[in-house]
Amino acid sequence: MESKTEYAATLTDIREAAERIAPYAHRTPIATCAAIDRRAGREVVFKCEQYQKVGAFKFRGACNAVMRLSDEAAARGVATHSSGNHAQALALAAKLRGVDAHVVMPSNAKSVKRRAVEGYGARIIECEPTLAARESTVLEVLADTGATLVPPYDHPDIIAGQGTAALELLEQVPDLDAIVAPVGGGGLVSGTALTAHGVRPSVRIFAAEPKGADDAARSKTAGELILQTGPRTIADGLLTSLGEFTWPVVRDLVERVVTVEEEEIVAAMRLAWERAKLLIEPSSATALAAVLTEEFLGLDEMSRVGVILSGGNVDLEDLPW
Amino acid sequence: MESKTEYAATLTDIREAAERIAPYAHRTPIATCAAIDRRAGREVVFKCEQYQKVGAFKFRGACNAVMRLSDEAAARGVATHSSGNHAQALALAAKLRGVDAHVVMPSNAKSVKRRAVEGYGARIIECEPTLAARESTVLEVLADTGATLVPPYDHPDIIAGQGTAALELLEQVPDLDAIVAPVGGGGLVSGTALTAHGVRPSVRIFAAEPKGADDAARSKTAGELILQTGPRTIADGLLTSLGEFTWPVVRDLVERVVTVEEEEIVAAMRLAWERAKLLIEPSSATALAAVLTEEFLGLDEMSRVGVILSGGNVDLEDLPW
Repeated sequence: MESKTEYAATLTDIREAAERIAPYAHRTPIATCAAIDRRAGREVVFKCEQYQKVGAFKFRGACNAVMRLSDEAAARGVATHSSGNHAQALALAAKLRGVDAHVVMPSNAKSVKRRAVEGYGARIIECEPTLAARESTVLEVLADTGATLVPPYDHPDIIAGQGTAALELLEQVPDLDAIVAPVGGGGLVSGTALTAHGVRPSVRIFAAEPKGADDAARSKTAGELILQTGPRTIADGLLTSLGEFTWPVVRDLVERVVTVEEEEIVAAMRLAWERAKLLIEPSSATALAAVLTEEFLGLDEMSRVGVILSGGNVDLEDLPW
Repeated sequence: MESKTEYAATLTDIREAAERIAPYAHRTPIATCAAIDRRAGREVVFKCEQYQKVGAFKFRGACNAVMRLSDEAAARGVATHSSGNHAQALALAAKLRGVDAHVVMPSNAKSVKRRAVEGYGARIIECEPTLAARESTVLEVLADTGATLVPPYDHPDIIAGQGTAALELLEQVPDLDAIVAPVGGGGLVSGTALTAHGVRPSVRIFAAEPKGADDAARSKTAGELILQTGPRTIADGLLTSLGEFTWPVVRDLVERVVTVEEEEIVAAMRLAWERAKLLIEPSSATALAAVLTEEFLGLDEMSRVGVILSGGNVDLEDLPW
């Protein structure tokens, strides 16, 4: 059993991250919905990261990572490869720091995503739509520019930044019995677990994962990190595998990974939109879907559960119903 | 010029309504969005009535009206004709008071609306889809049951109830220079105007109206109440005409009615969804659209404007883009 200090971030790191990003990030509101409470059989408190800058929690980690750089390193810019919320988050964080951002995007990325990243002033470098091409292209960018790589989740600064959402949530609702967060690469759920473990160790932490990208569930069962291959899910923020920093936290501090079917994700998303008027993306809906499973309904001694809604960036032309 | 006391509701009425509905209604949050501020050329603060019970401000007025009834009158039930948010609002208010609600609905009302009203335990009486049929049918219901009619907007208790949204808004953001609310029957905007006039008379009040249902704009221009005939707009909460209680308030206390095209409503709705993650219905978007018109952009001396988002009840199967 590892000691706490060996994880990616300490509570002190997370508190410092909160202070560091405070001038830039929103303190997002919480929300509740009586109709959803009835369905969940308990009180559900949503932490609404869809109202965060760039529409997703990703801004917290990216902002922490960029603002932590020395002036010298920052002046050389930052880089990443991403077609999702992290790309926008890094682009905005760099803009706020006044430095360059280089974002490697696959050539098949949606034009709306490209425009959003360009709108924050980042430079986009196109590559073939394979992980190998993305990684080799970003290495070229780093060599050319001297920029610092800011990965989307598997980095201590990112994890500490993502943990600030749970830090706020536990200030807003101190007496939560549990927190549920979606898991893809694990930045959000590991930051959440490290925060809760430090602030209020009795809070039970659950990860919510699509069955079509269930590497975290399989890793938990196996007791070792199993990488995701061929993920298939509508929750496009949850396609990635856990990493070397996030896996130990999921292994030790996450009680259980609850997996859900695609239809459950879509139904939860629609429930949130229709009844709670919460405009959330499928990755967020995965966490709500987990709370509505028979498996979760059967868990005892949790009267008040926090659910981190990770973001609200959806293509309004292509809704899943 | 009439004196203040001749209007439908005084500030005292509105404060009493706020106290009366406090155990039942949500104190809704406010929201802001940097991208929208840039488009509006000023700071815009949204009062988010889509998070109100039944997803619309209508619950405030209906709840005030129902809770104000004597026990004797309440025991005979309440009735209305509506296919919209008022029907759900009245059904829920009656349920909370533990009395019957009779709702006359046109036979062409959407089944999702019917189910919502039935879900709150109200009795639905179907009628032909004409105003005449609706009015005669509700009169029959009143005669049969002894129920009290609770109209959707043109009633002092309704207006006082709707005014509580602005009362909260002016507590949440005391230094607003103006408030914009959509206008259909005028319950919301007249309650808003009476509240602001009492709490902070320097606040300028604007009504936002679709060009396809512009009876309020035409009435203001003519200086007399002109009824709406043949309204055509996507903003299905704004089809109705001003009434005898709401018109004098609009005439005297609303500075201007800003009219907007259908395309402007749809664009504003999409802007709110995409950038602010605010899931609003077209009637709400009408108020945002007004703030984004050249006409409004050209108005001076308003650095901070409140916009009342009236609700978020949309058919997710039939979005206007």
